[in-house]
Amino acid sequence: MKIITETTYEAMCELTASILLGKMCQDKRVNMALTAGSTPRGIYELLAPTLRKHDCFSNVHYYTFDEVPIVGQEHGLTLTSLSQLYFTPAQIAKTHIHPITTDNYHHFAQQIEHAGGLDLMMLGIGADGHFCANMPGTTRWQESTYRVDLTQPIPEPWYQNLQSTFDPMPDCFVTMGARSIMQAKHLLLIANGSEKATIINKALTGPIDPAVPASVLQLHPNLTVVLDEHAAVLLPDKMVE
Amino acid sequence: MKIITETTYEAMCELTASILLGKMCQDKRVNMALTAGSTPRGIYELLAPTLRKHDCFSNVHYYTFDEVPIVGQEHGLTLTSLSQLYFTPAQIAKTHIHPITTDNYHHFAQQIEHAGGLDLMMLGIGADGHFCANMPGTTRWQESTYRVDLTQPIPEPWYQNLQSTFDPMPDCFVTMGARSIMQAKHLLLIANGSEKATIINKALTGPIDPAVPASVLQLHPNLTVVLDEHAAVLLPDKMVE
Amino acid sequence: MKIITETTYEAMCELTASILLGKMCQDKRVNMALTAGSTPRGIYELLAPTLRKHDCFSNVHYYTFDEVPIVGQEHGLTLTSLSQLYFTPAQIAKTHIHPITTDNYHHFAQQIEHAGGLDLMMLGIGADGHFCANMPGTTRWQESTYRVDLTQPIPEPWYQNLQSTFDPMPDCFVTMGARSIMQAKHLLLIANGSEKATIINKALTGPIDPAVPASVLQLHPNLTVVLDEHAAVLLPDKMVE
Amino acid sequence: MKIITETTYEAMCELTASILLGKMCQDKRVNMALTAGSTPRGIYELLAPTLRKHDCFSNVHYYTFDEVPIVGQEHGLTLTSLSQLYFTPAQIAKTHIHPITTDNYHHFAQQIEHAGGLDLMMLGIGADGHFCANMPGTTRWQESTYRVDLTQPIPEPWYQNLQSTFDPMPDCFVTMGARSIMQAKHLLLIANGSEKATIINKALTGPIDPAVPASVLQLHPNLTVVLDEHAAVLLPDKMVE
Repeated sequence: MKIITETTYEAMCELTASILLGKMCQDKRVNMALTAGSTPRGIYELLAPTLRKHDCFSNVHYYTFDEVPIVGQEHGLTLTSLSQLYFTPAQIAKTHIHPITTDNYHHFAQQIEHAGGLDLMMLGIGADGHFCANMPGTTRWQESTYRVDLTQPIPEPWYQNLQSTFDPMPDCFVTMGARSIMQAKHLLLIANGSEKATIINKALTGPIDPAVPASVLQLHPNLTVVLDEHAAVLLPDKMVE
Repeated sequence: MKIITETTYEAMCELTASILLGKMCQDKRVNMALTAGSTPRGIYELLAPTLRKHDCFSNVHYYTFDEVPIVGQEHGLTLTSLSQLYFTPAQIAKTHIHPITTDNYHHFAQQIEHAGGLDLMMLGIGADGHFCANMPGTTRWQESTYRVDLTQPIPEPWYQNLQSTFDPMPDCFVTMGARSIMQAKHLLLIANGSEKATIINKALTGPIDPAVPASVLQLHPNLTVVLDEHAAVLLPDKMVE
Repeated sequence: MKIITETTYEAMCELTASILLGKMCQDKRVNMALTAGSTPRGIYELLAPTLRKHDCFSNVHYYTFDEVPIVGQEHGLTLTSLSQLYFTPAQIAKTHIHPITTDNYHHFAQQIEHAGGLDLMMLGIGADGHFCANMPGTTRWQESTYRVDLTQPIPEPWYQNLQSTFDPMPDCFVTMGARSIMQAKHLLLIANGSEKATIINKALTGPIDPAVPASVLQLHPNLTVVLDEHAAVLLPDKMVE
Repeated sequence: MKIITETTYEAMCELTASILLGKMCQDKRVNMALTAGSTPRGIYELLAPTLRKHDCFSNVHYYTFDEVPIVGQEHGLTLTSLSQLYFTPAQIAKTHIHPITTDNYHHFAQQIEHAGGLDLMMLGIGADGHFCANMPGTTRWQESTYRVDLTQPIPEPWYQNLQSTFDPMPDCFVTMGARSIMQAKHLLLIANGSEKATIINKALTGPIDPAVPASVLQLHPNLTVVLDEHAAVLLPDKMVE
């Protein structure tokens, strides 16, 4: 694990955008899976103008790694969010966006494998330790991809949050599991803000335990963690460089 | 995970020897970590004459992945066993053998990384689910390498076995942990005989659980399992090809 | 470059079959391009029963790297030959065979790239220094794939051979060029018999010169050469191991 | 080959710095060989403060790829220049700088291989088509590393330039050759200014010919070219993206 701490969110976004851009600048198909959510917003704001300016990133293909279908909408939560944050402003061609869905999730890991595997996966982490949609209480590390049924109540805070956010409640979500995520050639975990400090310390230094789904990321063969100093504040000194 | 089942131990050894030999035949330094024990005996018997015959495998370097020091002896259990089984009959130069020891284990994973990483690691599995010396009750998945103290009793059957095998009892052992093993570019797990059937099924299809240390291998990005049909007998049909 | 010399053709085939088999035994899609011709016959005879016996090599995909269309036949010379030698006896599914053709050659290198690139390419060499259909007088190292027009005479012995072999003469052939071949992750060059001794020495130790098309293979980042001792007899002692 | 054109030298340096930084941010030893000269000056000015600020790039090791010894000085031309441009301002530890010298060049390629190979090599190009010290008239593509004797006159303009620059004239130089450069996992070629436009077009679109040493770079399996628009002006439209 390589942990890089920046003093500000802006610096953190600049460095992360560099990592993504560096990966894209190769003479080969580059497959990426990028996170939605608020953490990467600044990264995508830096990247989008560069991507728009150049016609030369047609070698880059994008995959989404989880999806929550929204009743009555064509696209789910993740694809909608990533489109707003990145795909639309960066003018990514639709043929280069490969979303996981409730229909294709069974073969999604194989589809990625047949395209040469993921070169980079950028993840966020939830204060509850989730990554992608590997949630406390429902995470299945041994699965490549899986579907979680939501029609029966799940005694976890995130389930209640979903209930209060969505009406009607989605009947399921799908996600890549730890098994396929371990196959990404480079894993990038980003977090900022003091509200992430506790989980960052727990996930990166604690036992590897399904109750903290992101703790499994410690086992990834090539993991880079980019933090602002607020998110890093509880890490042992020797780990913060 | 790719599971290959052969009808006999001999066929299993032939296929495995092919995998090892194929990996060696590259125009680059190739770093391997190979298991001691009884399972690989037939593999080494096939390989040794080929290695002796050719002077051209000087690109291959060997690492051991665990060690039990034996009181009063220069070399520990693993190195002694691997020397008898393979290094001596294959006439491997000492400069190409890099054993983990109670002295160097702290920096051993870094030493491997600085030599370009492991290209292949061949593991056996114990009926109790151990791999390398990642034992039930003492396994620490999050460690690259670690030392287990044996001077205080450990309430596990393997501790009693050690006691009845060694006099005096070794005061510790060292091993690579799951964290560094996940970084091997190709992982090969071998098992034969009906006495391995239960653990093979449990480790490869059950939950990923420290009580079954080898269950973590399900997460390796490039795992090949070679079995004879006795060891494979309890696996679900769809996994046995 | 790693050169391995075996005393007999049989030993050479055994070793080469091991290299191929070892490459197939991975938990990922494996893309291979294999040569037709007489040199690999013994290799395919060893491999075919193993492939037939196991259902587990569905991860392996095959590409052809050149083609000479035959007037009045559906398949060209290379695909016909490889089918007889290997694809049919090894019972390879048609969906796993991806032949280059006069129709698709423009996008063939990109097709390979989008499937993750070639993991292994096994080449023969002609006594005139050709590899694939990169022929003296028409080779274009800078091309990924190209078409050579045969309707106008080419002042090279191979053109005369084609004329005396085919009636009617094919109007073209297509081939992968040095540029895409350099992207194969592992390159395997095989040759046997004293009639290959002169060209093996010239191609592997002489200047890198388009007049000897195979001399460019010296530049490949991971080249393994497997020879019998007749083909190796003119190589400098230090290169033959 | 992936060609990226930026409108200004500054933009070109920013993108290139991103590529380098992205490569460094991995959880593994990263080996780089970087060019001296005037072209990369702006890149190093961007990188040095980032490197100084973070203690976390101790995973990065640097190799030089050519050297011209200077009579009466401990260090040669390349190491002296790179130290001023980058190693000193970026505060790179001496233990992480591995210079090629007239003493070690014989084993330098092997030393790199034993450290896991070069992850990235950044090259410039001379108006005469040289790269590293692979000069017109003396380039030897088939060598991993080689020494060029300067005590006998060489009928090339660069020899005259050396003579007018150095007094006394160095008696030799050493360089990595095309053979080892092809083994770098990622090759980055940078050029700016209209005085490079002719050679960029010739080297990247012309025949692969030792008279234009850099033309061999067309064969590299993963080549990224970063240009400003002046250096790109003669390239065919379809190549400039």
